[in-house]
Amino acid sequence: MSYKFAYNTRDIKFILKEWLPTEEILAYDKYKDYYTLDDFDTIIDQVRKVAAEVIAPTAEDADNIGARWENGQVYLPPSFHTAIRFMHENGWATSNLDDEAEGVLPIVLNSLLFEIEAAANPALFAYMATGSGVANVLKHYGSDEQKQRFLPKLFEGTWGGTMCLTEPTAGSDVGELLSKAYPTDEPGIYKMKGQKIFITCGDRDDVENIIHLYLARVDGAKNGTKGLSLFIVPKFWVDENGNLTPNDVQCIGIEHKMGLKGSATCALVVGENNNCRGWLIGNPPDENGVGEGIMQMFNMMNEARLDTGRLSTAVAANAYWNAKDYGKERIQGRLLTDPKAGKVTINKHEDVKRMYLLNKATTEACRALLAKCYFYDDVSENDPDPERRKWARKKMDMLTPLCKAYPSDEAWGLVAESLQSYGGYGYCEDYPAANSARDCKIWSIWEGTNFIQSMDLIGRKWMAGKGAIFASVLGEIDEFLAQYKGKIEGMDQEMIHLEKALAAYREIQMTIGGYVGAGKLGLMAVYARRILTATAQTYCGFLLMDQARIAKERLAELPADHYDYNFYLGKVLSARYYLNNAVPNVWHILELIKIGDMSVIDAPIEIFDY
Amino acid sequence: MSYKFAYNTRDIKFILKEWLPTEEILAYDKYKDYYTLDDFDTIIDQVRKVAAEVIAPTAEDADNIGARWENGQVYLPPSFHTAIRFMHENGWATSNLDDEAEGVLPIVLNSLLFEIEAAANPALFAYMATGSGVANVLKHYGSDEQKQRFLPKLFEGTWGGTMCLTEPTAGSDVGELLSKAYPTDEPGIYKMKGQKIFITCGDRDDVENIIHLYLARVDGAKNGTKGLSLFIVPKFWVDENGNLTPNDVQCIGIEHKMGLKGSATCALVVGENNNCRGWLIGNPPDENGVGEGIMQMFNMMNEARLDTGRLSTAVAANAYWNAKDYGKERIQGRLLTDPKAGKVTINKHEDVKRMYLLNKATTEACRALLAKCYFYDDVSENDPDPERRKWARKKMDMLTPLCKAYPSDEAWGLVAESLQSYGGYGYCEDYPAANSARDCKIWSIWEGTNFIQSMDLIGRKWMAGKGAIFASVLGEIDEFLAQYKGKIEGMDQEMIHLEKALAAYREIQMTIGGYVGAGKLGLMAVYARRILTATAQTYCGFLLMDQARIAKERLAELPADHYDYNFYLGKVLSARYYLNNAVPNVWHILELIKIGDMSVIDAPIEIFDY
Repeated sequence: MSYKFAYNTRDIKFILKEWLPTEEILAYDKYKDYYTLDDFDTIIDQVRKVAAEVIAPTAEDADNIGARWENGQVYLPPSFHTAIRFMHENGWATSNLDDEAEGVLPIVLNSLLFEIEAAANPALFAYMATGSGVANVLKHYGSDEQKQRFLPKLFEGTWGGTMCLTEPTAGSDVGELLSKAYPTDEPGIYKMKGQKIFITCGDRDDVENIIHLYLARVDGAKNGTKGLSLFIVPKFWVDENGNLTPNDVQCIGIEHKMGLKGSATCALVVGENNNCRGWLIGNPPDENGVGEGIMQMFNMMNEARLDTGRLSTAVAANAYWNAKDYGKERIQGRLLTDPKAGKVTINKHEDVKRMYLLNKATTEACRALLAKCYFYDDVSENDPDPERRKWARKKMDMLTPLCKAYPSDEAWGLVAESLQSYGGYGYCEDYPAANSARDCKIWSIWEGTNFIQSMDLIGRKWMAGKGAIFASVLGEIDEFLAQYKGKIEGMDQEMIHLEKALAAYREIQMTIGGYVGAGKLGLMAVYARRILTATAQTYCGFLLMDQARIAKERLAELPADHYDYNFYLGKVLSARYYLNNAVPNVWHILELIKIGDMSVIDAPIEIFDY
Repeated sequence: MSYKFAYNTRDIKFILKEWLPTEEILAYDKYKDYYTLDDFDTIIDQVRKVAAEVIAPTAEDADNIGARWENGQVYLPPSFHTAIRFMHENGWATSNLDDEAEGVLPIVLNSLLFEIEAAANPALFAYMATGSGVANVLKHYGSDEQKQRFLPKLFEGTWGGTMCLTEPTAGSDVGELLSKAYPTDEPGIYKMKGQKIFITCGDRDDVENIIHLYLARVDGAKNGTKGLSLFIVPKFWVDENGNLTPNDVQCIGIEHKMGLKGSATCALVVGENNNCRGWLIGNPPDENGVGEGIMQMFNMMNEARLDTGRLSTAVAANAYWNAKDYGKERIQGRLLTDPKAGKVTINKHEDVKRMYLLNKATTEACRALLAKCYFYDDVSENDPDPERRKWARKKMDMLTPLCKAYPSDEAWGLVAESLQSYGGYGYCEDYPAANSARDCKIWSIWEGTNFIQSMDLIGRKWMAGKGAIFASVLGEIDEFLAQYKGKIEGMDQEMIHLEKALAAYREIQMTIGGYVGAGKLGLMAVYARRILTATAQTYCGFLLMDQARIAKERLAELPADHYDYNFYLGKVLSARYYLNNAVPNVWHILELIKIGDMSVIDAPIEIFDY
């Protein structure tokens, strides 16, 4: 059986049609003549069908065949070619970034469609998504000439794209990269020299060209990240007539990974024959040697961070739905609470139900968080009011580290619980859980490790705008509590937990502030990852309660045999589980932080030899 | 690089020579003429060398070649043959169970030697250990004739052994197994018929014969586990002259697993040609159809549960030591607390040190727990006083579910943190972390899932002897607190946490008792796994504090430049980390249990379709 697509789209429909104020998005000029909320079911069903029938059949090839490197060329599993082309040609991929095109999909909708597609084959996802990331950067920062030369083919998907940051000596510390760019006689054109590693989709055999967004330092520019500039370094140079000639970009190998084997993770060498050209995006370094590269690259990086959360959610949710399908068939044991009822399917056992509900509640929490962020993305890109665009961008910035790190942290534990629910079969590759477990581990690492996300949250996001922006995110929870506390029937305890978590969270902020003031900066780093988790749990607790509030209203109107009844009941139970089991962790983390254990700081590195 | 052996033995020496009262063991008749504590360093160093030079070179073959099945025969990677033979021939394996032999290794010592060996190649471990499990069952329950016929070859390791419980329809629910045994004219000899799956070492090409301990139901015996009997079902039947003839035991395939690929997980069919014989161990089912099989098999099962904890500890600790070796070499980033000091090796970063200390403290906690249990094992097998043997056996019974489940639960998260510390390289199979992550997942499942362990703890162990036995385990912590509270310098806070955890733990017991009394039996199952964790954290908190107490005494005597200084300092820091970060989880779990969330119980299975 191996990998298996088992996605359910009901929660996605709920998010878009019943929870988020999606009408606001659909009123934008870009969308208003093309879509109404009534179209969403059809579109989502269509993508579910495409994911199942076009993408999912390629998933076993991802793991069994994998990406292959030979003589400087990466070969994808042949089935990938057809699926990727299909997605591009039918308007499900990069063409939605084309502002000139008619009927492009709203960002908030397309982002959730991508979750479905990602679940069908997570290794294939990047081949569709990286070109979009490049297109987005060029849309924002490219010159007209660059846009004309590169965007049409990227929109079509006949050219791919990559994000070239990491080098052997520069992983988390991007500013240490050694790639250099030397000016030529042609304005804006540089000779490139360097080596990159861990480049997702760095080479592939299904596209005519690959547009690398390449971070390098112009000769003489400042050290560190500030001195970096961003270049368009195509695999094949594109002249003004669109002719392609080799550009001295070599793929010297791919990594042999624990999972996600269909996704080529490439090592690239550029300019080894002194014959690689790059086209500078934006302005050259200023008189202080400061370039625009890192700021430009962050456009794509932030997108990749959201992608990471989305992939993690997709794979965890898909593993869970596979597990519950298995649980319907597998008969084993008797119920603790009713042994006389005889043998039962395992999905009736309390501990198995616990594993399912943990998975259901947590993946729904992650999906809600991401959807909220993509909603802001749509507002920030398309709202006619510049103030509202700015407001949405700020909200999105606050949530991005949570969106990247929380789902990717949780996925490892969630998939393990799904796997556990199969018993010994879970460990066998004939069942889908093992593959998902192997796939998901990279996501806590790439695109900025989850520690980097945590420090971004605490060090940067907490402080932005003198703390007012982050405070406004927490303020959403205050408003929710003020409006609904005591008013959601049967959920008083859960609301009390939310209130308690919010207060504890603010105390976490103060406690960390106190440590920093007392010169114990190291404790901020020691507790950083736990604080990120507490942040996500507080905020997601709010989101799930808000969803449960709506679900409660629907339940009140529906008879228990209505086809949607169990969906809404499930939403309420997800919130109850999450608020009673995950959210209390927030004040537990506060308590740990207040202990202020110095053992990590005090530890000389020599003790780790034992 | 792939799998790599990086074990340090200092903590093992500390446990045996400075912490546990091992002298008591060495005074037993069996050992007293052969070993003193002074010999231990040499023996441990020798095994460390053997593990590194003989076993570890086979570890890459485990993953790259794996066990192979062809035409009914399992083939081990060729390198395994030599290593396994070496271990047997040099007295490091099953020969230590031979009571007639001179100079057998004390159980408490050998158990920790096995941890070192397991770390060198966890997939090879079972080929050495399963024969010992069979030998132990035969020593306890076999007839003299059976002992004579089977034990010598098992002691030599020229025959292997297995534990045959699981069947396609009988995993966690062993009592459902379908294997049957039909009496023949020969007393004690039965015709066997059935199918087994997930049989570790179920077939192999490095031994002359395999002695399956086979659980089956004598025709007409009672349903459920009570009706089961245990049989010796050799791959080749052994006549009174030691001649071997095929016994209609077929290996019809092996599983393709996520990890531990060198360990053959076999499907066996016995008696398909109506020609398989089994030799009953002990008595046939009584007049009520009740057999002795499950009780006998539990001897080997309990041993396998301890093995599981030991494997988990070994693999997690080995992954950690590999990670810290990498951290010494890899330069990346600047210190948050001292950026001006320039680029540093990553082992100086707070979050990396946190990952190391989490691993160090938790693996030491697991090792201490297991060592304590193996100490009781030695007492229960060898103490001259039958009352003390019984006492030790009871203590061991209490700790067994913790020994199995806690290390195997923790390993998944611990190895993930080691892997994380490499950055992207951690996800690449050229580095050792990915292999360890894939290997360790089975251990939370096999030999009774960790939920089964948790229910064994709460349902059986809490209640045994009207609760007095488990209370005596907690009583050890009371005694420790009474003796040392306020007396371990600089560790008052940690002692307060231990005291608070113990009180919280007792309240957990009362709260669960209250739920059961109120008819909420389901909540016991819902919280079971968390309760097992809380139990282990409370007890391990005590063990690590007790070790830190000794380490503190040593530190007071040593100059800071003494070669052992950092070891003892590390023991103190492990205890500080564990008591300030893991142990507070006990009262957090109490709080969750008191919330008494009913969402899992209330959830109809239909909600999991969404």
